[in-house]
Amino acid sequence: MRMSAKCPACLLNRIYQECRMVSDDEEKIGRIIERAMEMILEEFRRREVNAIASTRVHRMVYRMLDNDDPYRELKRRANEETARILPLARRYVERGDRFRNAVVASIIGNSFDYGVLGHEVNDSNFREYFEREFRRGLAIDDVDEIRHLCRGRVVYLADNAGEIVLDRLLVEEIKRLEGRVSFVVRGRPVLSDATIEDARFAGIDEVADEILTNGQGAIGIIEEELPEDTRERMESADIIISKGMANYECLSEGSFDSIAFLLKAKCEPVARDVGVRVGDMVAMLR
Amino acid sequence: MRMSAKCPACLLNRIYQECRMVSDDEEKIGRIIERAMEMILEEFRRREVNAIASTRVHRMVYRMLDNDDPYRELKRRANEETARILPLARRYVERGDRFRNAVVASIIGNSFDYGVLGHEVNDSNFREYFEREFRRGLAIDDVDEIRHLCRGRVVYLADNAGEIVLDRLLVEEIKRLEGRVSFVVRGRPVLSDATIEDARFAGIDEVADEILTNGQGAIGIIEEELPEDTRERMESADIIISKGMANYECLSEGSFDSIAFLLKAKCEPVARDVGVRVGDMVAMLR
Repeated sequence: MRMSAKCPACLLNRIYQECRMVSDDEEKIGRIIERAMEMILEEFRRREVNAIASTRVHRMVYRMLDNDDPYRELKRRANEETARILPLARRYVERGDRFRNAVVASIIGNSFDYGVLGHEVNDSNFREYFEREFRRGLAIDDVDEIRHLCRGRVVYLADNAGEIVLDRLLVEEIKRLEGRVSFVVRGRPVLSDATIEDARFAGIDEVADEILTNGQGAIGIIEEELPEDTRERMESADIIISKGMANYECLSEGSFDSIAFLLKAKCEPVARDVGVRVGDMVAMLR
Repeated sequence: MRMSAKCPACLLNRIYQECRMVSDDEEKIGRIIERAMEMILEEFRRREVNAIASTRVHRMVYRMLDNDDPYRELKRRANEETARILPLARRYVERGDRFRNAVVASIIGNSFDYGVLGHEVNDSNFREYFEREFRRGLAIDDVDEIRHLCRGRVVYLADNAGEIVLDRLLVEEIKRLEGRVSFVVRGRPVLSDATIEDARFAGIDEVADEILTNGQGAIGIIEEELPEDTRERMESADIIISKGMANYECLSEGSFDSIAFLLKAKCEPVARDVGVRVGDMVAMLR
């Protein structure tokens, strides 16, 4: 999925917020915003895949901020907040169709993203939010086909910290189906995306067969950056579970197939591309 | 007040929304966003006054959209919605210190702005909102000095449609003090700002001594664009009542004095410059 006309403002706003989180130096932030605008303009002119453009721009921002993880504290909080509702989510999963319920829980987890313009989840309403979303269900529901493929070789591409705590529930269900799970996190901190530490916090290392990375911490998947083992698993997978919008943006343009996109459509361009409305939850096999 | 690092994203977002309001042509909107980014980058590099930069960029957008008033319908609605709470506001003004209450009512009116990022007033809570804000009062309160100067020659610079309905209450109070009111609206439609039609809708023509314009519809005041009569009134005024952030951005850098800035600080850069918190209401004489 290519950059849409809405992406530049959203990206620029996120960069401003990101700078503010870790710096009060108006002049430095001004220089970063200037450079970011130049880069975004260039990326937008060639309608780059948004997540790839974002990756380039955020890398520049991190360098100029001289900070390799501005979202550290936010990720920690997201993990802890989500861990607090894990028992609730587990009860929901255990009543009825466990696999389906775990898919939905993991997609609700995908809402916990603090950077998308106009999309905010209020921590204090967390529990209530979870319950409401759970009742709401999926706008695109390919869960049965996805379940079928999850008996084989599964590559699970994680998205955010926080969310990853609920991903664990789905990994457990895939293991019940006797699937083999290669769980892939970002290879370096970027935005609020999950890295190896978050996977350990969520205990994914206890349930998945292996934990791999996407290499250099792209926001999503940049194929040229994939480590050899990760690429090999993705190529030979029976199904790739792709969490979130950034992985969607990249893989909807990429060479892999049998991809289950599990996401909450948090912005208009992605919702339009998927064919749903903003706020809808999707479990779509392509 | 010069552009801050937050302004480019806010401006770009507003332009996107503005395009979407009147067009579904993704390709055209893409071209507009590209051109807007080029211009905003240039304006930001020289830290132009934000309202002046916005004026230039929005004029380009209107030209490329081939639309001279994308906010027409929104202004109509804002006027009508505000007219509906006018009796309530009038009752508030009439109990106690009328002038002070009218100042506060007119500043609450300044909240009714649909374009500032992160700042939304929900129409349905209008009445409740008015009452809550009224109780809240002013963060900077130079009302007594302002009242004193309002016995003389007053230039009243309006801001938005909707808001202008409540401005009428303050103009009435100035007339009670026997001040002479030159009421200034935008000379052409721009954003949701009030023009001569909105002044007539609000009945300002029945209470003010004259209605003038800012010339070519700048967002705020661009001195070179002021018609001769408007400039003369501003130069010889005992006090200039300046509503809203755009007028503040321009006049805080300009050559006029004895200015009463009546505004709701709707964004962080303006709040910081004024020395209050976002959301605060201000009646500040400078």
